[in-house]
Amino acid sequence: MFTNLEHLGLAVHDLDAATDLYTKLLGQGPYKKEHVASEAVDTVFFQVGGSKIELLAGTSPESAITKFLEKKPEGIHHVAFEVADIRAEMTRLRQEGFTLLNEEPKRGADNKLVCFVHPKSAAGVLVELCQTISPTTHD
Amino acid sequence: MFTNLEHLGLAVHDLDAATDLYTKLLGQGPYKKEHVASEAVDTVFFQVGGSKIELLAGTSPESAITKFLEKKPEGIHHVAFEVADIRAEMTRLRQEGFTLLNEEPKRGADNKLVCFVHPKSAAGVLVELCQTISPTTHD
Repeated sequence: MFTNLEHLGLAVHDLDAATDLYTKLLGQGPYKKEHVASEAVDTVFFQVGGSKIELLAGTSPESAITKFLEKKPEGIHHVAFEVADIRAEMTRLRQEGFTLLNEEPKRGADNKLVCFVHPKSAAGVLVELCQTISPTTHD
Repeated sequence: MFTNLEHLGLAVHDLDAATDLYTKLLGQGPYKKEHVASEAVDTVFFQVGGSKIELLAGTSPESAITKFLEKKPEGIHHVAFEVADIRAEMTRLRQEGFTLLNEEPKRGADNKLVCFVHPKSAAGVLVELCQTISPTTHD
């Protein structure tokens, strides 16, 4: 079950400039900055109600964000939904015919297990499933 | 103040096909279909936690959604934030240097007053402000 629109991920060229811009737009500053070495990205998070805005900038040429911005302008990179049981949702979505971009959940930013659904499966939207890691979560 | 990520608007070519696809993806059906004559769009809404997914299909060549899909593939069209006082937010954003696409709030889908911020102002994201119309709201 999808329980929440957890965050929107925005690909940006200049993280400091985008942080200033979104601080002005949202009328409040970010609550966290985090480097995710496994994805080669720097991230900045804003909280809006029960959802987050995640700004993402690549830190190497191999980063998915760097590659995205070589082909496309700045803007929305992915939409993340919180799920209660990521493995159960991955099994359900495979059975429904969706193409998943990873076989197993992987660790993402903000203490989550994540999995991506191919945008060609979802009307052009890169969908992320995420499950908050608790002391009893098995990854 | 931005109080919630109220909805994501997705531009689609075939509303019935996209409704079937998102019913499978989200694991639940939509709660509402609505024609918005002023915008020449048909819309379908899904609820996920405190946010909504709005599928949008144009119903005339002049629709903003039809024009969007002439230039771009299916995908995210806009991101809408609930605000407590849309006129106060419009004044604040103008003072911060953002370009608004309408001078006055206008009536949108789902019983809202809405205003759009130009994507060039917001790192490539078309941002909608929306305020739920109550019996005491002045538009």
